[in-house]
Amino acid sequence: MAIVVQKFGGTSVADAEKIRRAAERVIKAVKNGYQVIVVASARGKQTDKLIADALELNPDPPKREMDQLLSTGEQQTVSLFAMALDALGCDAISFTGSQIRMITDNAYTKARIKSIDAERIHKQLDKGRIVLVAGFQGVDEDGNITTLGRGGSDTTAVALAAALGAEECEIFTDVDGIHAADPRICKGAVKLDQISYDEILEMASLGAGVMHPRAVEFGKKYDVKIHVRSSSREKHGTIITHEVPQMEDIVVSGATIQKDLAKIDLVGVDNKPGNAAKIFASLASAKVVVSDIVQTEVGPEKANVSFIIGISDLSVAKQAVERIKAELNCNTIFVRDDIAEVSVVGVGMRTHYGVAEKMFGALAEANINIDSITTSEIRISCVVDKKQADKALQAVSAAFELDKLPERRAKKD
Amino acid sequence: MAIVVQKFGGTSVADAEKIRRAAERVIKAVKNGYQVIVVASARGKQTDKLIADALELNPDPPKREMDQLLSTGEQQTVSLFAMALDALGCDAISFTGSQIRMITDNAYTKARIKSIDAERIHKQLDKGRIVLVAGFQGVDEDGNITTLGRGGSDTTAVALAAALGAEECEIFTDVDGIHAADPRICKGAVKLDQISYDEILEMASLGAGVMHPRAVEFGKKYDVKIHVRSSSREKHGTIITHEVPQMEDIVVSGATIQKDLAKIDLVGVDNKPGNAAKIFASLASAKVVVSDIVQTEVGPEKANVSFIIGISDLSVAKQAVERIKAELNCNTIFVRDDIAEVSVVGVGMRTHYGVAEKMFGALAEANINIDSITTSEIRISCVVDKKQADKALQAVSAAFELDKLPERRAKKD
Repeated sequence: MAIVVQKFGGTSVADAEKIRRAAERVIKAVKNGYQVIVVASARGKQTDKLIADALELNPDPPKREMDQLLSTGEQQTVSLFAMALDALGCDAISFTGSQIRMITDNAYTKARIKSIDAERIHKQLDKGRIVLVAGFQGVDEDGNITTLGRGGSDTTAVALAAALGAEECEIFTDVDGIHAADPRICKGAVKLDQISYDEILEMASLGAGVMHPRAVEFGKKYDVKIHVRSSSREKHGTIITHEVPQMEDIVVSGATIQKDLAKIDLVGVDNKPGNAAKIFASLASAKVVVSDIVQTEVGPEKANVSFIIGISDLSVAKQAVERIKAELNCNTIFVRDDIAEVSVVGVGMRTHYGVAEKMFGALAEANINIDSITTSEIRISCVVDKKQADKALQAVSAAFELDKLPERRAKKD
Repeated sequence: MAIVVQKFGGTSVADAEKIRRAAERVIKAVKNGYQVIVVASARGKQTDKLIADALELNPDPPKREMDQLLSTGEQQTVSLFAMALDALGCDAISFTGSQIRMITDNAYTKARIKSIDAERIHKQLDKGRIVLVAGFQGVDEDGNITTLGRGGSDTTAVALAAALGAEECEIFTDVDGIHAADPRICKGAVKLDQISYDEILEMASLGAGVMHPRAVEFGKKYDVKIHVRSSSREKHGTIITHEVPQMEDIVVSGATIQKDLAKIDLVGVDNKPGNAAKIFASLASAKVVVSDIVQTEVGPEKANVSFIIGISDLSVAKQAVERIKAELNCNTIFVRDDIAEVSVVGVGMRTHYGVAEKMFGALAEANINIDSITTSEIRISCVVDKKQADKALQAVSAAFELDKLPERRAKKD
């Protein structure tokens, strides 16, 4: 019998009525002949409430106790979900991460999964039961409860799908699926029928925010078919899967915009070995995540170094570079907190030309100045003025016809 | 190093401020040289909230899932409590019932403790840590979470004190200790310095409601010194302990009143073998708990059978006896829902005379009619009119001088 994993996020189980609706969704899959594993998050704002309770007692709570506390949210959901299924006449059993031996390392609040006791779950499924597993949590070798960090329930679901050989891992959300561009900004942006792990990883880290990158990486590693779909509507959502040949025909799968960024420029740094390392070591020790590093030579033995950071890290990052400014013999530090980054992503870029040209052309035509450009194998990103962010996304989306289904777009060479 | 177990009920940990105050109480014991184990209940009304959430989804939720759900309340408290201790500079670690292998049978919602992994706790105590254990819960041999029923946290605390050889098990409550009579009814009723397990068991089942009978039974079985005391004040409370010789000097330790009772009289039942069994089998199958059974012969081969039940069971009990009325050849069934039962309890009754006489005299003097009387080795109970309940308790308390310390009472033979 084929297995399907269904994951319901916090908003999909926020109250009794929503849990009941989710339960009906599960029963539909059972009626379609599947053995079903349900992964659920904490209800609505429960996790936020517990965090507030903790901080009221301790501004810096011990991480082990934090995990012990937060794991209760998901445990509550799955037991309530099992009760709802029981009320609808289904045999269901709920498990905590500990009970199915979801073994992780002991990195509290951001643990990584090491193994799962698939046997215990198979045994229950084979009894005709629906199995519910509390998302977001595991247990270390010593029996301490751990949690997997933000987006952890996605990871639980994909890991279970991998461990049990599920046909599909369904991620139920409040959107229809993944769109080629944010439909709130680009009206008519099409919903993607499928997208590759690599593309969604580029899009997720660029702020599309539909799936947690770690869950996608897990899916990629174990080749789990992930189906992101609406919890309130029946229709097909977006399948995240390994790259298939026809994906290459689509040059650009999606476009994203990120507005919560800042840029730091170090002007006239001594261009000698070790200086770049110094900069990023100082930032790393301040726990600042850096992207889009650009170094350019300017005159004899001098270079400019620039990079992008999250705007919430700006003051910490500024202090970190100010500290070593003299050491680098740096003239000036420029800071911009009024930037945005527009990107296009697509595995088709590997085999198609002219993507960069078209993107820059579209921005130019819309009178948008490009501050800087960075690229990966399947992504091109341009830093622009934050005030022009939405306009930039619209221009790029229009240029790549993201409001049309891929097969209806103008043919490229 | 001596060990003490400290148990905090739901009202003592209802909010951050109260948890902090409880934590300070724990630290005081540490400073006094004790290794401390803390047992805590769910905060305030958390359990009631979870039960309401469950019933909204399922009027008759599966018991296993109910335990899975309710156990989260205590887990939250102990992790928050550990955070509070950490904030006050103490090394503390919290455990669920599962984590300390509090093994129970699998009678969900009313499981019984079979064993505890004392080693795991000793190891943590010996590291200089305060150990917090979620009350009310355990785990069966298969790893399913179980709960111990109402008053379960008391039982957890006493069981831990027994398993770890604690010097004392402190039960913190919102009263100063156990009083000889309810001070809301009998002003000036003295607080008892000590009382025996047997006496408190009689008083608890009679509605004094300070300690759960199961916890007291556990304490009696393993000879655990239980100290019931105020969570907000420092002073000595009431020690529940095995019977010591000087207790026998005290004829009556306490008096209680129970008002939530009803009485059923079956008049003119055929007095033949098996009829009494039929009545109580019918009541047992309706899950009605019965007390104070009295059977009296009335005329040739006829008997009256009466018994007391909780008033909430009245309609179910009535149906149960109506069903077999014809079979018993019973003339009439009388029901009284306007009764109360006043009782005096004391191990000294075993060796002293005149207790019954004094009690009946006190009630007569107060113009209170006695409906019926039942006794045990250390208890005398009289059923009276509910309207006279408080007056009856006051009369009895005055007669036995329960407003005076035992050593100041008039000497008895």
